[in-house]
Amino acid sequence: MMGHAEPARLIFAYAGVQYEDERVEKSAWPKTKPTTPHGQLPVLYVDGKPLSQSRVIERYLAKAFGLAGENDWEMAKMDELVACVEDFLIEIHPWFKEQDNAKKVEIFKKLIDSTIIPFITAFETILVTNGTGYFVGDKISFADLAIFHIFWFMNSKILPGALRKYPKLLEFVDKIAAIDTIKSWINSRPKTEA
Amino acid sequence: MMGHAEPARLIFAYAGVQYEDERVEKSAWPKTKPTTPHGQLPVLYVDGKPLSQSRVIERYLAKAFGLAGENDWEMAKMDELVACVEDFLIEIHPWFKEQDNAKKVEIFKKLIDSTIIPFITAFETILVTNGTGYFVGDKISFADLAIFHIFWFMNSKILPGALRKYPKLLEFVDKIAAIDTIKSWINSRPKTEA
Repeated sequence: MMGHAEPARLIFAYAGVQYEDERVEKSAWPKTKPTTPHGQLPVLYVDGKPLSQSRVIERYLAKAFGLAGENDWEMAKMDELVACVEDFLIEIHPWFKEQDNAKKVEIFKKLIDSTIIPFITAFETILVTNGTGYFVGDKISFADLAIFHIFWFMNSKILPGALRKYPKLLEFVDKIAAIDTIKSWINSRPKTEA
Repeated sequence: MMGHAEPARLIFAYAGVQYEDERVEKSAWPKTKPTTPHGQLPVLYVDGKPLSQSRVIERYLAKAFGLAGENDWEMAKMDELVACVEDFLIEIHPWFKEQDNAKKVEIFKKLIDSTIIPFITAFETILVTNGTGYFVGDKISFADLAIFHIFWFMNSKILPGALRKYPKLLEFVDKIAAIDTIKSWINSRPKTEA
């Protein structure tokens, strides 16, 4: 899977830092799970020391690679937007996980107006208001990469065409996807559904 | 409510920093909601600029008040533990919110073995393993205050006696509650149920 680790992989890709990208097959998970600090993936190992929780890993890498803003306030504003993305992912989780098609449609009908459209609209507005082509400040950050991933995933996997009416977000997704290091990661990464 | 803002209030209390603690009555919320950046509370205003998302606020204050560890790795390890607390709160949310007593008991029966006992046990183990009386490093941090709050709340509000078999966690909760600044905040804060 791309899964929860993908924004961290985008940070590595953008920063041009080599790492070992160890994937765990579903069949191997029961054996691997007890070796993780909190029974979850992803885990980042730094000099053999483990760090779990995907968003925590992103913040740590962002600090290390200079993708965390000019000061603590900017980093907090980035952190805030990623937390909003996380809230959104939790809210749409029942839709994403539902296997029964009729129920899936039913859940989607509720979420589209209550959650999905407000989320896309809010992020279009934030991008327009910041006015730099990035979400916080005037340089690319870990927040941009996390936000890029969710909208890229939405627009190309789970809701094709979702960004049609959101020109700034669409332009943003295309711009990030066109960065050399990001483009070459997207083209070379394992092809997975989620 | 204490609600999501309480760990941030504990950080202010411990740091001895004055702030305006504006509570919003339920009846005033529909009018206040559109004035918040993402339709949620809490919001921290710093020189008039808003920051939302409770855990983001905690990290920002912790940095500002020197409660975020000696280096980025220590802060990441703190961040990781708070993220685990957050996962736990999301998992127990259906139990906490359920109004029907029979259903509440049913949900609790599932959660106690799958989620609640493993969570308490894991945190007892982390505390014992770190061996300093704090969760990361050898000084009090925002992670300690967040972890204190969840276990204090559990032990004195929602699951009285939950920590009986966890001597180190119980000792930790008592120790933090006995710090002068924390004690005086707990004794003076508005008495609320949640």
